[in-house]
Amino acid sequence: MSQAIRFRPQVELAGQVKVDVQQVRHPHYGRYLEEFAPGQVFVHPRGFTFFRAQMEAFARTYLQCNPLYLNEQFARANGFAGLPASPQMVFNVVLSLGVQNDSEKAMANLGYYDAQYLRPVYASDTIRSLTKVIDRKERGAGQPGIVTIRTLGVNQCDQVVLQYERKIMVAGQGNRPPTTPLPPSENGLMPAFPWVEDGEVWLPEFPARGVAGLTGPRSYFEDFSVGDIIVHANGRTVTDEHLPLTYAVGNTHPLHFDQVFSSGLSGKMSGKPIVYGGLVFAWLEGLASRDVSENSVWELGFTEGYHTQPTIAGDTVAALSRVLAAEDAPGDLGAAFGSVTFQLVGVKNISAASALAKHGEDLFIKENDKKAIGKEKIDEKIFEIERRLLIRKRG
Amino acid sequence: MSQAIRFRPQVELAGQVKVDVQQVRHPHYGRYLEEFAPGQVFVHPRGFTFFRAQMEAFARTYLQCNPLYLNEQFARANGFAGLPASPQMVFNVVLSLGVQNDSEKAMANLGYYDAQYLRPVYASDTIRSLTKVIDRKERGAGQPGIVTIRTLGVNQCDQVVLQYERKIMVAGQGNRPPTTPLPPSENGLMPAFPWVEDGEVWLPEFPARGVAGLTGPRSYFEDFSVGDIIVHANGRTVTDEHLPLTYAVGNTHPLHFDQVFSSGLSGKMSGKPIVYGGLVFAWLEGLASRDVSENSVWELGFTEGYHTQPTIAGDTVAALSRVLAAEDAPGDLGAAFGSVTFQLVGVKNISAASALAKHGEDLFIKENDKKAIGKEKIDEKIFEIERRLLIRKRG
Amino acid sequence: MSQAIRFRPQVELAGQVKVDVQQVRHPHYGRYLEEFAPGQVFVHPRGFTFFRAQMEAFARTYLQCNPLYLNEQFARANGFAGLPASPQMVFNVVLSLGVQNDSEKAMANLGYYDAQYLRPVYASDTIRSLTKVIDRKERGAGQPGIVTIRTLGVNQCDQVVLQYERKIMVAGQGNRPPTTPLPPSENGLMPAFPWVEDGEVWLPEFPARGVAGLTGPRSYFEDFSVGDIIVHANGRTVTDEHLPLTYAVGNTHPLHFDQVFSSGLSGKMSGKPIVYGGLVFAWLEGLASRDVSENSVWELGFTEGYHTQPTIAGDTVAALSRVLAAEDAPGDLGAAFGSVTFQLVGVKNISAASALAKHGEDLFIKENDKKAIGKEKIDEKIFEIERRLLIRKRG
Repeated sequence: MSQAIRFRPQVELAGQVKVDVQQVRHPHYGRYLEEFAPGQVFVHPRGFTFFRAQMEAFARTYLQCNPLYLNEQFARANGFAGLPASPQMVFNVVLSLGVQNDSEKAMANLGYYDAQYLRPVYASDTIRSLTKVIDRKERGAGQPGIVTIRTLGVNQCDQVVLQYERKIMVAGQGNRPPTTPLPPSENGLMPAFPWVEDGEVWLPEFPARGVAGLTGPRSYFEDFSVGDIIVHANGRTVTDEHLPLTYAVGNTHPLHFDQVFSSGLSGKMSGKPIVYGGLVFAWLEGLASRDVSENSVWELGFTEGYHTQPTIAGDTVAALSRVLAAEDAPGDLGAAFGSVTFQLVGVKNISAASALAKHGEDLFIKENDKKAIGKEKIDEKIFEIERRLLIRKRG
Repeated sequence: MSQAIRFRPQVELAGQVKVDVQQVRHPHYGRYLEEFAPGQVFVHPRGFTFFRAQMEAFARTYLQCNPLYLNEQFARANGFAGLPASPQMVFNVVLSLGVQNDSEKAMANLGYYDAQYLRPVYASDTIRSLTKVIDRKERGAGQPGIVTIRTLGVNQCDQVVLQYERKIMVAGQGNRPPTTPLPPSENGLMPAFPWVEDGEVWLPEFPARGVAGLTGPRSYFEDFSVGDIIVHANGRTVTDEHLPLTYAVGNTHPLHFDQVFSSGLSGKMSGKPIVYGGLVFAWLEGLASRDVSENSVWELGFTEGYHTQPTIAGDTVAALSRVLAAEDAPGDLGAAFGSVTFQLVGVKNISAASALAKHGEDLFIKENDKKAIGKEKIDEKIFEIERRLLIRKRG
Repeated sequence: MSQAIRFRPQVELAGQVKVDVQQVRHPHYGRYLEEFAPGQVFVHPRGFTFFRAQMEAFARTYLQCNPLYLNEQFARANGFAGLPASPQMVFNVVLSLGVQNDSEKAMANLGYYDAQYLRPVYASDTIRSLTKVIDRKERGAGQPGIVTIRTLGVNQCDQVVLQYERKIMVAGQGNRPPTTPLPPSENGLMPAFPWVEDGEVWLPEFPARGVAGLTGPRSYFEDFSVGDIIVHANGRTVTDEHLPLTYAVGNTHPLHFDQVFSSGLSGKMSGKPIVYGGLVFAWLEGLASRDVSENSVWELGFTEGYHTQPTIAGDTVAALSRVLAAEDAPGDLGAAFGSVTFQLVGVKNISAASALAKHGEDLFIKENDKKAIGKEKIDEKIFEIERRLLIRKRG
């Protein structure tokens, strides 16, 4: 149904409205340290409809090799209702939708914890994002504090598709005006926040046998033994593409696309726009995918994820994986599938093979643990995380 | 239905066909000044099917924050038949389809006037573009002239979705060969050109209440008073992405993607490819969207639009808005909606806040009016326009 | 149908699993010279679902001007079941899917031969790729050899959509470990390889008359006479966009997106990532499309295709076409259509017009033939091929 409306013709007005530079406002988004209150829930704006187009573009841009995200026939033959969104895209979108409330004023992302993918996201699903403030740690006047938040991605049926915890470093407000307030909630109550400890994962009914011929022969469950180190051969040079890719997933932090903003910063973040960390994580997973996840049917989740150095356009990123655990999947699923936990490490401007030759076992020691054991941090190391996948058995 | 045809095998031929460099042609497109005849109508080639993919990509690339263009559920809840194309995409496509006839030989785009969006464009709509030559002003031998044209975007049901007027600066033919002629019209008559003065706008039946929680709390109709200046916090660095983005909307002018062409020019346009102005306009609207249009349900149109300085890759653009008018929408629509006219100003390589601090009210004076009042033009100012939006009341 | 599974909580593990840098593997893909055995068939991994999004994006990125690939109404009015994928996209995908087996260790692509497009590819079709090794020519110890392969693109109904032959230069294994082996075939037999000599082409039933007004007036069959040289006016500067575009079509060769890899090479390929040749070919066809293929309804195929110089980001490519043959289409089709064979030549960092003025007929002599006739190769020439199109008659 539509309506036909006649509006007054638009006429030139600017010269008739006197300019008063005092009648000005400067809307700012994100939250300063004082603006985070433990217990508070943010309902993030916009939402995000997953269209097949960006689902495919995401998988390809970040070098995904698992046909589950590239080949619709393959996805259906594996029991999915259609091509699922890659978990990395789900994570990036859910996090990015929250930036406007959570971290647009943050100075750094300190870590990702306890992420769990709980349901597939398909084309035409619309995902909203919610955040609960868990903790605010102040570290003295003039010092940025640390805020712990939990975020949920929820689909149009109000089902949680992803949950994770995150720590961010946030500066105090100082003498700056407050940021844009939240819209009032519908009924004056704090919105529901359906975080689930140890939730069930809703998976398709996978067929007993996989599809032959479309995946690598050396990345079945049986190919992974605890302690294996897998050096992923190819790297990826990140280009200025990262500026548009940041807002493609909904991330509004100017650090990633506003050179004037970046130039005005001091310290490690100053200079060229920094690549949004979620994109770096996605590239590293993609680089690893040919060797570790082509026969994976589900990304269970990840924890202890740290961006240890920033990445900028022109940097080449490369990845290594190390097997931390491998066990049968629970119950009946265990006959054909196992879960494998990998330590994923990213490096920049050095090949993965050279990084291993140069740094050896130090590559796999958490950067934050190094000081305590008298080791130096590795400048070429950009990322570390533990991730767990559900992988088909060769059988 | 298909047919099976056997062709002769293709065999190598180049060595057998003598090269005669005199048997050459150089097809050129666009029109020289003399080739524009007032009254003439160009039916532009190709047409453009709007696919959801590019509709979403456009909204995201240009930093659109209104969920109307990002969240299908939200669009439907607002009465739309699906996700509409963003008005900026409609404008960019309709203009770009016409470049091959209108402006591929133009030296500059002088201004946009009286643009009206008359109907939504949805996924799978195919838009054609038509232009009528209104006026040709010659300014003496060897001088470029000024051509005034009107352009329509028409959908597959022959309904006008957008109309606007544009002035361009065009050089004479000189001793160059003529450009590629138009195809003959079907019946030898000038094609119809259904421009409508003050037309009705075909809008969805909007629900009385908006969708809660997905849009900003400070961009309802009541939030805008005449004279308000709104400084949009974030800028966007434009990268080389603009080269492919130009033809993504169908624009064929080499100034925007051919470095050899650009290097051969003299004057302000020489050097790196210039960003097609329609893209700059789209970025500026996107940068403003979080503060002014998240609760807008229709872009009514714009006028007095001028690109006052060129933008190239590497430049960071930022935006300011000023409220020029705010009034109830006509008839019943006025209960829940009002129209707001904004002056939108773009700057480059300076933050919007710094630009306001540095230039004050001069930012909002039309660049072309400055000479007459003894003011200097502002090098950092790249764009100015008046735009009118239909915005929901908070109620 | 779905199942709800409870997994054990993921806990941090890295510190508990001792790092043993000897327990390492380095998966490598592609094949060294010794690993190619004539008669062998590779079933390539992944497959590739053609989604409308990337079909449109491909057509626009590579400057396609034929509305057949841009305007769904136009495609249907021409008898197609929907918007077909552009032949260049089909070629790029089929070749790229094979890189992991065929050429990820290749040093150079030597030539394309006997390519035939046998059926349209539509949105939602899933294409797999197969390669048969035809010949392996060794050229002495320490020298790279030449491998001749044939590749097929096959749709989900096991119909061949494209076949072509290719020669590649491949180094020997030396003391490097072997590459990742093929997965075993289902039954231990060599997979079928349905190459067809001189196959039938499955075409839509084209309507007798074309669609008026959407295509150029000077690119009908009658406009092309043997010997005509057509200088395509515009060039296209290739940007860093080519890095993501490489994997967008499924190509896994690090030469095209890994600066660390490229920096480690010696010779002509060292330095910045080289643009994957298939993309260069696509841009050149796009640049030519406005002048030669807007009225084409089918790309029949191509042969004798050579990349004679590499292209890197920042280079501007331009194109010229020369008519080598023009004849009526077979049978009834000949009343309204003819086939035209073009020599397509690409140049870089010079306009096509300047290249013709500077090099004259030498531009159209095959680079590999020049030594024998005492001519110098042209550094500015990047590509040459013979391609054959089915083009509508003006009638």
